[in-house]
Amino acid sequence: MPKISERARVIPASPIRKLVPFADQAKAKGIKIYHLNIGQPDIETPQVGLDALKHIDRKVLEYSPSDGIASYRKKLVEYYAKFDINIRPDNIIVTTGGSEALQLAFAACFNPGDEIIVTEPTYANYISFALQAGIVVRPIKTHIENGFALPSIEEFEALINERTKAILLCNPNNPTGYFYTAEEMMRIREIISKHNLFLISDEVYREFRYTDAPYVSAMHLEGVEDNVVLIDSVSKRYSECGIRIGAFITRNMELRNAVMKFAQARLSPPLLGQIVAEASIDAPQSYLDGIYEEYIERRNLLVNGLNRIPGVYSPMPNGAFYTMASLPIDSSDKFCEWLLKDFSYEGETVMFAPGAGFYTDPEDGRNQVRMAYVLKKEDLQRALIVLEKALEVYPGRTVNK
Amino acid sequence: MPKISERARVIPASPIRKLVPFADQAKAKGIKIYHLNIGQPDIETPQVGLDALKHIDRKVLEYSPSDGIASYRKKLVEYYAKFDINIRPDNIIVTTGGSEALQLAFAACFNPGDEIIVTEPTYANYISFALQAGIVVRPIKTHIENGFALPSIEEFEALINERTKAILLCNPNNPTGYFYTAEEMMRIREIISKHNLFLISDEVYREFRYTDAPYVSAMHLEGVEDNVVLIDSVSKRYSECGIRIGAFITRNMELRNAVMKFAQARLSPPLLGQIVAEASIDAPQSYLDGIYEEYIERRNLLVNGLNRIPGVYSPMPNGAFYTMASLPIDSSDKFCEWLLKDFSYEGETVMFAPGAGFYTDPEDGRNQVRMAYVLKKEDLQRALIVLEKALEVYPGRTVNK
Repeated sequence: MPKISERARVIPASPIRKLVPFADQAKAKGIKIYHLNIGQPDIETPQVGLDALKHIDRKVLEYSPSDGIASYRKKLVEYYAKFDINIRPDNIIVTTGGSEALQLAFAACFNPGDEIIVTEPTYANYISFALQAGIVVRPIKTHIENGFALPSIEEFEALINERTKAILLCNPNNPTGYFYTAEEMMRIREIISKHNLFLISDEVYREFRYTDAPYVSAMHLEGVEDNVVLIDSVSKRYSECGIRIGAFITRNMELRNAVMKFAQARLSPPLLGQIVAEASIDAPQSYLDGIYEEYIERRNLLVNGLNRIPGVYSPMPNGAFYTMASLPIDSSDKFCEWLLKDFSYEGETVMFAPGAGFYTDPEDGRNQVRMAYVLKKEDLQRALIVLEKALEVYPGRTVNK
Repeated sequence: MPKISERARVIPASPIRKLVPFADQAKAKGIKIYHLNIGQPDIETPQVGLDALKHIDRKVLEYSPSDGIASYRKKLVEYYAKFDINIRPDNIIVTTGGSEALQLAFAACFNPGDEIIVTEPTYANYISFALQAGIVVRPIKTHIENGFALPSIEEFEALINERTKAILLCNPNNPTGYFYTAEEMMRIREIISKHNLFLISDEVYREFRYTDAPYVSAMHLEGVEDNVVLIDSVSKRYSECGIRIGAFITRNMELRNAVMKFAQARLSPPLLGQIVAEASIDAPQSYLDGIYEEYIERRNLLVNGLNRIPGVYSPMPNGAFYTMASLPIDSSDKFCEWLLKDFSYEGETVMFAPGAGFYTDPEDGRNQVRMAYVLKKEDLQRALIVLEKALEVYPGRTVNK
């Protein structure tokens, strides 16, 4: 049998997927699981998007342009203008989710062996895409004690060498929920400008901000316009994870033209998803307001509830719909497995994403879990009770900090 | 400005795309263009697929499983059984078009620097995907004189070394329309078995065969089950290019599990397309029969017509909906450009894909063009007349062979 590739050998399996068989077993036993482990919102897709789907009246479901349907890109320009992100349709290449936008950025910005600096804890799939493209990941640690704030310029510079090509930022952040401040964005601007790096900024949680502090997009940074790539997706903002529509955006036309060659090779982004996404831009303000209010209440309920449980700590995140919490446990891998295999309270248990999967050194996430507050408040309330009861009896419980 | 990557620099722009501005200019002058340059069929999508789209009744367009919707994979198993391809649902990973299936195969089978043997002329995007993954392409030449038949074992072995990991076959072939014989498939079997190579077989044109000779899929080859990867797509068989649904299929579970890790990183294939593709499997036999009859007539009309034009030669292809024809011209790049910029006959012209783009050495395709017979017969008839008139006055015409 021919050997699989080295990158296929070393690429980590998703930390959540390893738990799926245990979750299936728990369900088979009739146990109800509160899924705080994944970022699949329960919020409904906007009606205008669902209506557009119903009204597709084509006889041939043909290729769309490689950079996306022109009318959709035009409408995206208006959408971004609302955030003072001023671009042209030809700055946008529509992609198959934010995932493909990242893959395209990686192919066009990096030679194999080049390095990328990524804040940790990090969205695990960044690591997978980097490995797939032959890129070396240099993690820069952020810490739960200060809410996962941006490290100092000196800490960044300690990681920069002649192979460093880019900094990858997720803002608001998955998995921490951290929302970068204007001052921090200026710090990033200074670093990429001084060292002539690309800044790849994943801002798919733009709509999920719970503070009056200004939203400083990477696209707002002055003097580094040619360095910046914006990664976007409609998955979260319109609860359209399944339609696989994202965007690669840059004002750097040399880079844009390079990415277009890769985009042409894969022919086109999904036609049907683009039609839904384009219509969804017209979702009424009440739709987004409703989501905002729902999530802020969920966040407050979850994070305040966590901090009332002895030995548990979560910062109060200002964005996205995740938080990284530290628990009084020996190992989050073991604890998350135990919750599914060996525990239930009144016929219920909870599922989290173990922290180790968000760090290149699993030890860093040993006592952390990521929780997604994508469930309704009653369910979050129950999940908190179940967690508290679980920690009371978990055999690997550690003493309180 | 940071530098783009070397792979982004060397990846070729699509040879057809270079012609698009000239096509736009021709249209602006009111000239009608017969598009034989692309594989976008004019055949309608099956009604059952379009109906399924109309009846999607979901409130949340959520992620589908990373390997695809279970019911769709189960139904695909029944579809393949009709071709004596006997697999299980867990041999299938649903992908974003055949394009992503190839990208996943490349990531999981090859280390950067490994080599792949590809028949030439070749589907140009194979070269792009290989470059993106850091794979070295070793072309093996096929020749218009014998209809682009498979080269001998000795010719393959001359290219095999310790970095060779796979042979990539497209059957029926894009761009030549060649359909490999049972004897040729046994030859391939012998080579991959002897040298322990992967066989990546792109069989997306399975439905487009115009001969009673048996269809020998790579999945039929005995004793090399763990070596074979089948690349598939619904784009062509149901005229659903835009929904971006393909499949990566292998019986090699180590490889399948490796590919799943990459597939999980990109989360899921398009939900809406999978719903349409699943329903389309129930397209009545009359739909496929109608397509078959239409294409065989188009092929006969085009190829016989070409061979009646002085100096033009096309083999009679047995599959897909393309043919590579040789023309009495100095350069197909120049000729295809001239057709759009400087020529029209009774207000009409034709657009082809220049042959150079299908070869690693452009010289090999200098006097060839690829034609896709995706237009109705009256249009093909007109295109032939326009081509004949064009060759009579083209300044770069060469003497007949």
